Amino acid sequence: MQDWLTARVNASPDALALIIGEERWTYAELEGLVNGVYDRLRQAGVQPGDFVAVLLPNNLAYVCLIHALARLGAVLVPLNTRLTPVELQWQLDHMGCDWLIYGEETAETAKNCAAKLGIGKIEVGDLEIGDLTQPSISNLQYSIANLQAVVFTSGTSGRPKGVTLTFTNHFYSAMGSAYRLGVLPDDLWLSCLPLYHVGGLAVIFRSCVYGTAVDLHPRFNLEEINRSLDGKPITLISLVPTMLRRLLQSRDHWPASLRLILLGGTAAPPELVKKANSLPRKNIHHSPFPLVAPTYGLTEAASQVATMRPEAVMQKLGSVGKPLLFTQVKIVAEDGRERPSGKYGEIVVTGPTVTPGYFDKDGKSEIGDSPQSSIANLQSSTSTIHTGDIGYLDEDGDLWVVQRRTDLIVTGGENVYPAEVEAVLRKHTAVAAACVVGIDDPEWGQKVAALIVPQAPDAVTAEALIVWCRERLAGYKIPRLIRFTDKLPQTASGKIARKEVQKSLHNTISNNVH
Amino acid sequence: MQDWLTARVNASPDALALIIGEERWTYAELEGLVNGVYDRLRQAGVQPGDFVAVLLPNNLAYVCLIHALARLGAVLVPLNTRLTPVELQWQLDHMGCDWLIYGEETAETAKNCAAKLGIGKIEVGDLEIGDLTQPSISNLQYSIANLQAVVFTSGTSGRPKGVTLTFTNHFYSAMGSAYRLGVLPDDLWLSCLPLYHVGGLAVIFRSCVYGTAVDLHPRFNLEEINRSLDGKPITLISLVPTMLRRLLQSRDHWPASLRLILLGGTAAPPELVKKANSLPRKNIHHSPFPLVAPTYGLTEAASQVATMRPEAVMQKLGSVGKPLLFTQVKIVAEDGRERPSGKYGEIVVTGPTVTPGYFDKDGKSEIGDSPQSSIANLQSSTSTIHTGDIGYLDEDGDLWVVQRRTDLIVTGGENVYPAEVEAVLRKHTAVAAACVVGIDDPEWGQKVAALIVPQAPDAVTAEALIVWCRERLAGYKIPRLIRFTDKLPQTASGKIARKEVQKSLHNTISNNVH
Repeated sequence: MQDWLTARVNASPDALALIIGEERWTYAELEGLVNGVYDRLRQAGVQPGDFVAVLLPNNLAYVCLIHALARLGAVLVPLNTRLTPVELQWQLDHMGCDWLIYGEETAETAKNCAAKLGIGKIEVGDLEIGDLTQPSISNLQYSIANLQAVVFTSGTSGRPKGVTLTFTNHFYSAMGSAYRLGVLPDDLWLSCLPLYHVGGLAVIFRSCVYGTAVDLHPRFNLEEINRSLDGKPITLISLVPTMLRRLLQSRDHWPASLRLILLGGTAAPPELVKKANSLPRKNIHHSPFPLVAPTYGLTEAASQVATMRPEAVMQKLGSVGKPLLFTQVKIVAEDGRERPSGKYGEIVVTGPTVTPGYFDKDGKSEIGDSPQSSIANLQSSTSTIHTGDIGYLDEDGDLWVVQRRTDLIVTGGENVYPAEVEAVLRKHTAVAAACVVGIDDPEWGQKVAALIVPQAPDAVTAEALIVWCRERLAGYKIPRLIRFTDKLPQTASGKIARKEVQKSLHNTISNNVH
Repeated sequence: MQDWLTARVNASPDALALIIGEERWTYAELEGLVNGVYDRLRQAGVQPGDFVAVLLPNNLAYVCLIHALARLGAVLVPLNTRLTPVELQWQLDHMGCDWLIYGEETAETAKNCAAKLGIGKIEVGDLEIGDLTQPSISNLQYSIANLQAVVFTSGTSGRPKGVTLTFTNHFYSAMGSAYRLGVLPDDLWLSCLPLYHVGGLAVIFRSCVYGTAVDLHPRFNLEEINRSLDGKPITLISLVPTMLRRLLQSRDHWPASLRLILLGGTAAPPELVKKANSLPRKNIHHSPFPLVAPTYGLTEAASQVATMRPEAVMQKLGSVGKPLLFTQVKIVAEDGRERPSGKYGEIVVTGPTVTPGYFDKDGKSEIGDSPQSSIANLQSSTSTIHTGDIGYLDEDGDLWVVQRRTDLIVTGGENVYPAEVEAVLRKHTAVAAACVVGIDDPEWGQKVAALIVPQAPDAVTAEALIVWCRERLAGYKIPRLIRFTDKLPQTASGKIARKEVQKSLHNTISNNVH
């Protein structure tokens, strides 16, 4: 098989591939740039099978590197640019990376890390991105079972894990997404998610196999996103709820070209989805039609696991819909048995998009000694991941994600799902947002604690909320500790930073004691 | 991997699968019917690996059989209902079929054939199609590398050949088509091509993996097709030029829902494409936009090889565009060397949609002794087919199909491509249609002969056409024999029956001699 960029250029060289700001490249032009980067990576000494860490913001160089490393047979290890030097060094070492590619913004940190670990370093400026060369790639033998990347999960708890992703994973993810959301040759996907997260990375591969275009943003900048939406024929956009909320505050209509908002990262609040779906579209005078497609995605499944079509979303606010084609979702009890519909349990995902395993330099056995060769054997099979997330399938087969298991609170032997408590708190008219966590407790193991953002300062008291909960929740689910704040802390990917909430609530108690 | 119908029902059970007339079935409902058919096929004794011939018109039973045989691991051998008993018997015998499934319309012929060859016969009425059963299928081990069908080519010359098609072939064909034409979850594809041709069969698999719907017609009935176009939200339609011409004569607008006409079977006459693209659309007041996507397809490549997007068609009337994703087209000279762009040669197609080979009961070695096991080895590889068709790639990589090689005329050592001569004849205002063939000639090997449909009886003489040609063609290309008729004979799939033209022109000479 041809590599995807070669196949794409063969099939539609003149199709638009990439827009950044006011600049644009067709697939033939992009391939010219990738050829140049490929040649210079080889000259620098990068070998097939090398692990190549990339510490860059979203930009043209990054997109070229993704394709050039794929052609070279080297494995991309995308690094989070928001990490501290200590965290980066741990990740580079943990993966046994051979190379680190960095940019001007990240030069100091990168040089420091690379020197300490004895890793080859390449400044992205040396790759002369933008220097268009003629097609010069020999016809490499290419297997879609090869390892494409190791992506760190952005989990809010514990050390990040390196998730291996093969081209097969991306291939089926692209296909499943196409058949769920639709794909049209003139699609233009606005992507402002970082390329070091699977949500951002997947858009690049998806577009390449589809032959469609990406409008790539370095970050979520409200003004820039709105400029794109109003000035370019954007048809799809990936957002997390925080971004959508900010967009809605700034807009009174959607552009006529937009056909879908893929909303992931964390559970989509029903009110937000309703508001987004009721916003009118420019120049379309009939009643507004729904745009929001809530999705449940995992780094371990190359992005989307289940996605609700916009047409169905208003009837099932809160659900993420049915799994993509060939992806199977089961709900499993702690004893490993499958749970019937309507019953909570761990979400277990099987399918061709699922990672063959986690990887680190010391634990290569998880996927074999040589990832390239051992993963090749997995080509025709599907993998299974026990997500640790809690949810249920309703009678129609739609998935409802209730909680990340890492956030499960166990108090006095009883399980408490924070989402359930949060939902009750949020229903109180004086509550704008709520985060419920478990904090250590000598008597009960954990106790339920809540951090509340009130609609206005002093709009409600802790006592009033406890009374409110007592009417609506079993005794063991009621928060033992309630604190107020003006903003919930968030992670880089827009999730609530539960560990941070937990820590601050824990400190509250400790301070009280002393 | 799950079989496609199971995977589809898992992903979107309530999506519309099939419409026939006023009846409609969702994927869950279709699966219920398929389960019943599957059970009854097993009861009748059909085994995995059996070759099962089906002699039916397009109907619900046929669609159920396609899915049920796939689940069972039996190989579908679709038979052309227009064949004579002698031809059918030859095909059944040639394939070594184990079973023949027939309907009321085909009962007499089928019973006769089956009895003579000792083949198991099943009347479709016995399968109780429409008797909806509960899902009861066990989770079969399913490989997409399995053989799905053996489809006879509708070649206009020589004995038909049995083309093996795997699920892999269909899978990549569906994907390549989706990424070229676009796919939307609400697509409804009108299909009136027979299911015993790859163009009709491919629509069934394509729709199943997409989760979209088919409006299935038993045949091209102008009134029924127009009723569908005007009464159902048809988005895509597959046609051959003769059908499109008849449609255009009967319509003054396209429905607003229609977004694409896939035009295959034979080269699309530029005037026809122009006319179809200039027809307005209902309720869409801006200028009409192009709908016709001319395609070059082969049974040997599970349908489309190259397809031109409607947006590009008016700039390159006569071209079929670029190959689908992962399909590679080369133009090869008789010595096997690749020809540069702009130069004629044989069209050679490589890719994952290409058949692993031809098959017959005596020549199993072409694909191994057991098709199931030997084809499994081909899963990750691509195949190559030397089409025998003549064409060239232009500088942009767009394919122009000039002629089927079987129709190539060799006269006095010079090659004559009938299409070239036909194009010249058709440009004459008095000529409505023309077919040029080679007929045996003792002196020159072959000589060029033409059968002409004039715009009106006696609108033009043979002498006038020869003068016309002499001004426009090299001497050896000018027809030595010209005859007139009121209609060109056609094959079942709408191609001109060149062999028949050749025979009738040959007889003309013989009669003249006697």
